[in-house]
Amino acid sequence: MFNNDDLSSLRWDAVSGTVEIIDQTLLPHTLRWVHLDSLEAYCHAIRHMQVRGAPLIGITAAFGLAHALAVNPSDQNLIAASEALLSTRPTAVNLRWALEQIRAEVSSLLPWARAEAALNKAVELRAEDIANCSRIGEHGLSLLRELETDGKPLNVMTHCNAGWLATIQWGTALSPVYKAFAAGIPVHVWVSETRPRNQGMNLSAWELHRSGVPCTVVADNSCGQLMRQGLVDCVIVGSDRTAANGDVCNKIGTYLKALAARDNGIPFYVALPESTIDWDCASGAKIPIEERDALEVLSIAGVDASGQGLEVNLAAEGTSAVNPAFDVTPAELVSGLVTEYGFFAASPEGLSEMRALLPGA
Amino acid sequence: MFNNDDLSSLRWDAVSGTVEIIDQTLLPHTLRWVHLDSLEAYCHAIRHMQVRGAPLIGITAAFGLAHALAVNPSDQNLIAASEALLSTRPTAVNLRWALEQIRAEVSSLLPWARAEAALNKAVELRAEDIANCSRIGEHGLSLLRELETDGKPLNVMTHCNAGWLATIQWGTALSPVYKAFAAGIPVHVWVSETRPRNQGMNLSAWELHRSGVPCTVVADNSCGQLMRQGLVDCVIVGSDRTAANGDVCNKIGTYLKALAARDNGIPFYVALPESTIDWDCASGAKIPIEERDALEVLSIAGVDASGQGLEVNLAAEGTSAVNPAFDVTPAELVSGLVTEYGFFAASPEGLSEMRALLPGA
Repeated sequence: MFNNDDLSSLRWDAVSGTVEIIDQTLLPHTLRWVHLDSLEAYCHAIRHMQVRGAPLIGITAAFGLAHALAVNPSDQNLIAASEALLSTRPTAVNLRWALEQIRAEVSSLLPWARAEAALNKAVELRAEDIANCSRIGEHGLSLLRELETDGKPLNVMTHCNAGWLATIQWGTALSPVYKAFAAGIPVHVWVSETRPRNQGMNLSAWELHRSGVPCTVVADNSCGQLMRQGLVDCVIVGSDRTAANGDVCNKIGTYLKALAARDNGIPFYVALPESTIDWDCASGAKIPIEERDALEVLSIAGVDASGQGLEVNLAAEGTSAVNPAFDVTPAELVSGLVTEYGFFAASPEGLSEMRALLPGA
Repeated sequence: MFNNDDLSSLRWDAVSGTVEIIDQTLLPHTLRWVHLDSLEAYCHAIRHMQVRGAPLIGITAAFGLAHALAVNPSDQNLIAASEALLSTRPTAVNLRWALEQIRAEVSSLLPWARAEAALNKAVELRAEDIANCSRIGEHGLSLLRELETDGKPLNVMTHCNAGWLATIQWGTALSPVYKAFAAGIPVHVWVSETRPRNQGMNLSAWELHRSGVPCTVVADNSCGQLMRQGLVDCVIVGSDRTAANGDVCNKIGTYLKALAARDNGIPFYVALPESTIDWDCASGAKIPIEERDALEVLSIAGVDASGQGLEVNLAAEGTSAVNPAFDVTPAELVSGLVTEYGFFAASPEGLSEMRALLPGA
């Protein structure tokens, strides 16, 4: 599994030097690979969410900056291209981080040496992300093995998309699932559709299906009832930002799943790379919640019987809606954090333990 | 408020003898009144869910049987018409109950006297339903008054549709809201869209708007976060079936709201007419959960920019889904039951107390 680039969101071909991404705005109805061959194409891909998911955004930007330097390695262009890429998604932490990695690598070099160094760094960041996600999967696999009962399918519930479409390969929340599947464990995933943007139905169900892992989509409303019926062995979700006390900010609806998991004695795991931990954020109460456009609630995109994409209005004209994009799950509802450094309690102590393992700690 | 038939789901005109219903399948995009003028029209309206909601189904059927007896009051037609109506929604308890009320009224009468007696009974059942819902509203209003703080809007969250579209007037869960609004309390309703069939967005938001009550639609996923942010003063939902221990079976997603309400110290009320209590059902664990078509999850109906209705597929071809229609909220999560007999604890004791007040108890 994952020994080829078919299950990757961003392909890098070392021979031809080409970068291709899946246009995720067309999923799940159409799989289209887009060849990124200009700075404009990279900026467009990030801005218009052809790529999304913090790790994937960062690495796409890194390749974008490398591309810009191959065209023109001047100081001026290094600054201009960085700014162009950074402005595509101003609040994405990984975007800034990845661009800084490239700039740190190349800014002290003479212009003629920059393109190759930048590309090597982008390739390295890509490989690192894959390795981190793979490690998250291995640590998560140990947890899944504890829940396995002979021959019975292991039912994992997830929310939103924290799979290989959000990273490069493996994913975060779905990485343990892929590792379990590869290890021959009969795993099945409950995919919560994740209104209003339906990333569960559009992305997670699509990538699981493509990876051969059995999965079933349910309305977000069904998740509690499935747990009550004994049909869920554990919940694994990703995280957009984790506070230093273990509070987890993630896609809206995560908190309701965590409540239902606790009420039914089901483990609720959060899988995340260390990079999503905000060490300066003392608790989830400090995390601002992005309010998105009400139209995301009031209308929806799909395809008609002929496969033609279209958008329909769901509500009556004049209907008001609000659309918070994330919620905060308090640490006490989280059974543990699955990271590339291992498994830790979602608590100040657990996070300190992890911090001691970081390079340079 | 409700002194005219504009805010009613079924109009009865005593002078012309006509019955009109709102075709709820066209909501929220189109308001169309349908004149029911044949047994076939009544059967069609119930079968194709132009009318839905247990009380409204029952009363529509009662008028349908009265209509059939006006055409042909024979014993044979009494049986045939009853069976035709009953077969439209075989599992609807209120449908059977309402038809039995009419049959009990007329079966001992000579044929020539039946039509008038049946119609009188149907009119009486309609008035009774309105009175019961009004009483539920009054009892609920007392609870809302306790939560009111001077001048601050009172934020009530609801789920699915248990308003006047599901009954004749007032509704059950929304009746206290309408009473509060009529009393000048600044009430605002959070309407959970209620995937997969979106009765919240399609029906509750529509009828609240039509009644002048401010409301805001949110994705079901947002409900926990709104509570955490202190934006919800209480939750009121309806019930499809309530067990004798106070466990509440209601539209899928209700349980998640009850969990979030408890976690945030917010009252969670269930408003219901006594007729939805299943006295023979010892606990919610005994209530079978209807599984509905996966297509309800995988596709959705809306309108395009020109207002033309259309259905779109949301998921990739070959996607599996499951679609439980209801969930069970355990009694310990319910702050109390609001009924036409008053407010009772959701417990065997609370229900026994209520039972003692029933006519004939």
